[in-house]
Amino acid sequence: MTRDDARSLDAADPLRGFRDRFHLPDGVIYLDGNSLGALPHATRDAQADAVTRQWGDQLIGSWNSPNGDGMGWIEAPARIGAAIAPLIGAAANEVIVTDSVSVNLFKAIAAAAALNPGRFELLTETGNFPTDLYVANGAASVIAGLTVRAVAPEAVEDAIGPDTAILLLTHVHYKSGTRRDMAAMTARAQAAGALVVWDLSHSAGAVPLALSREDVDFAVGCGYKFLNGGPGAPSFLYAAARHHAAMRSPLQGWFGHAAPFAFDDAYEPAPGMTRMLCGTPPMLSLLALESGVATFAGTDMGAVFAKSSALFDLFADQVASRCPELTLVSPRDAACRGSQISFSHPHAYEICQAMIAADVVGDFRAPDILRFGLTPLYTGFEDLWIAADRLADILDSGRWRDARYAVKAKVT
Amino acid sequence: MTRDDARSLDAADPLRGFRDRFHLPDGVIYLDGNSLGALPHATRDAQADAVTRQWGDQLIGSWNSPNGDGMGWIEAPARIGAAIAPLIGAAANEVIVTDSVSVNLFKAIAAAAALNPGRFELLTETGNFPTDLYVANGAASVIAGLTVRAVAPEAVEDAIGPDTAILLLTHVHYKSGTRRDMAAMTARAQAAGALVVWDLSHSAGAVPLALSREDVDFAVGCGYKFLNGGPGAPSFLYAAARHHAAMRSPLQGWFGHAAPFAFDDAYEPAPGMTRMLCGTPPMLSLLALESGVATFAGTDMGAVFAKSSALFDLFADQVASRCPELTLVSPRDAACRGSQISFSHPHAYEICQAMIAADVVGDFRAPDILRFGLTPLYTGFEDLWIAADRLADILDSGRWRDARYAVKAKVT
Repeated sequence: MTRDDARSLDAADPLRGFRDRFHLPDGVIYLDGNSLGALPHATRDAQADAVTRQWGDQLIGSWNSPNGDGMGWIEAPARIGAAIAPLIGAAANEVIVTDSVSVNLFKAIAAAAALNPGRFELLTETGNFPTDLYVANGAASVIAGLTVRAVAPEAVEDAIGPDTAILLLTHVHYKSGTRRDMAAMTARAQAAGALVVWDLSHSAGAVPLALSREDVDFAVGCGYKFLNGGPGAPSFLYAAARHHAAMRSPLQGWFGHAAPFAFDDAYEPAPGMTRMLCGTPPMLSLLALESGVATFAGTDMGAVFAKSSALFDLFADQVASRCPELTLVSPRDAACRGSQISFSHPHAYEICQAMIAADVVGDFRAPDILRFGLTPLYTGFEDLWIAADRLADILDSGRWRDARYAVKAKVT
Repeated sequence: MTRDDARSLDAADPLRGFRDRFHLPDGVIYLDGNSLGALPHATRDAQADAVTRQWGDQLIGSWNSPNGDGMGWIEAPARIGAAIAPLIGAAANEVIVTDSVSVNLFKAIAAAAALNPGRFELLTETGNFPTDLYVANGAASVIAGLTVRAVAPEAVEDAIGPDTAILLLTHVHYKSGTRRDMAAMTARAQAAGALVVWDLSHSAGAVPLALSREDVDFAVGCGYKFLNGGPGAPSFLYAAARHHAAMRSPLQGWFGHAAPFAFDDAYEPAPGMTRMLCGTPPMLSLLALESGVATFAGTDMGAVFAKSSALFDLFADQVASRCPELTLVSPRDAACRGSQISFSHPHAYEICQAMIAADVVGDFRAPDILRFGLTPLYTGFEDLWIAADRLADILDSGRWRDARYAVKAKVT
């Protein structure tokens, strides 16, 4: 594979045009869209409109959208949820956007626990992205009887038992990119009488999903990674339609009320997913997410993941042949992974910093993972060829040993 | 009081120059800043910078602020909290910004409940802004033993008793604008062994506050009203420094961890208010709030409320003499109210709509309240003179009876 070969792949790439939807800083090869998606050009104008016209000129009128321009703020959580739905294989009315992943996960756990009375164990895995365990333990600190049992990833399936109320799993592992078999694990848990809560933070916009068809109970996912929603973009929350009538969130705020502007003292949950809203959603961040989700218009997750898979193969092959010091930790089988490629190295942190200094932005995940996100809407084959070339150069030269690359940042 | 008299008051107003910090649509008299504060001019540029430079160009680097420009996203929740602190009489390290008022209220209730073991009653009032009751009841639905007792506002003080774990009150009532005596109620509750949680949604940026001096335990408040943070701006959460070491939030997410990027399975709360963070905060909305809070730079809440009081008197006097159909429901005594003026009328909804059609934007609160916000940074005396004049005209002419003013909006 030469650089020209990689260029030819870009020229033949049916998704190549999508790159023009994004602002990519000159000279930077950005392989961290799995941490923070790149800025869509459309977001700039949409955000200026949200600030200047919707807020500045229309003021509170924008909640009702008196201009009939479809931009009513009150509908935004459901409208953006409906836009995300086809990307995750859900029905439009099964998804809503508000709050953070952590807060939505708390709601999903509490709702699932209440829907499965008489069982009290939340089963999950160790070594997952830790907010999931933190939130599960936080929920267990208040929900009567709920206990958290975290077992090694490979022991989860056998640990599902008659006490399991909730199986909480992350679909794609944040470090390795390993993807679980959602259909099989969901069926296994449900056959044992448990409800499933899936964290799709590294899956939504990354891999094909079929939540409705696979009968998933609850799921949460991230707006600021592959969905390009901007820093700290609100999260989405999915619940299967069959649970809508009975599910309740203990985070019950006025935006989840059936008639919020009646100002009744008694809480009456709104129909459907709206009851999972809590307080007033952060509208500027919400509207930025809407523009991010819109970058997928005109393609589908099958096409996106097919390109992801080709990107992975190119990079994995180049690194295997040119950087023998690195150990691939992501699965080679595309069906078993998300849209990232991770390697281990005892000095992954320093190598990551040296790569950033060489204008290739990936990230480090403690203790020893060098992680590169593959975001097919804007990552090109030549980008990855160059990235591998620079990685080989940094390793061959030993340049990563320079002391400045060992300085720890607050956020890694 | 003639229109010229009102103009003279504007000319002599030491805060008059602050109006230039805001975008106010031509011809509109905006008296709804207690619902959604007006757009500060600085926010437009700051938000464009947040989108284009911080997100678009710096990408994930903005978490760490490699440019040393003080805009590190990771510090934003504490930095904006510190900026709000002087407006509410708190120490800089006692305030943090993240999530919605409702979510922060849940955290405050849960934290207070755990700090007051052996008592299980959350005492609050009926007829308050309902999200407070919804959240309290939602918290009680999961926190073992916690029960909610809501009594009439005037019965609260006598209802404080040996079972009271938490007294949850709103400082300024959303409908009437009635302000409670925070120092007295706090002292009364604490003397009885309770902890207090104050909702400052209609107080922060509206009236002088002295949370630290009055020994308030916990408080939450709104970013999108008087603080001009934009639609759905994140909320602030205050906790007295004496509680920091022992308080815990059951909404424990990775942003509240002592070392979020260590990715440990075990939750270790960060020192101080940072432990009250949960998931990744919605950064664009957070940064808009920062610009909103900055509109107070160069004044203090004493000066702001002195002007509010003068604005109130002008409007109350004009309405009393020219609109006898309206009943003032806000207290005349400035020490007993917030920064709004409310009237009751059986057709308050229609009158409100007719006023909006006449370019005077107030709002309606069910069932019969016509509410006008007084936001001294941008509300002028002449504005209120004109508003009263149009109100008198709408009432005298009976124009509010036009059928189009009875059409109900989703958001009122």
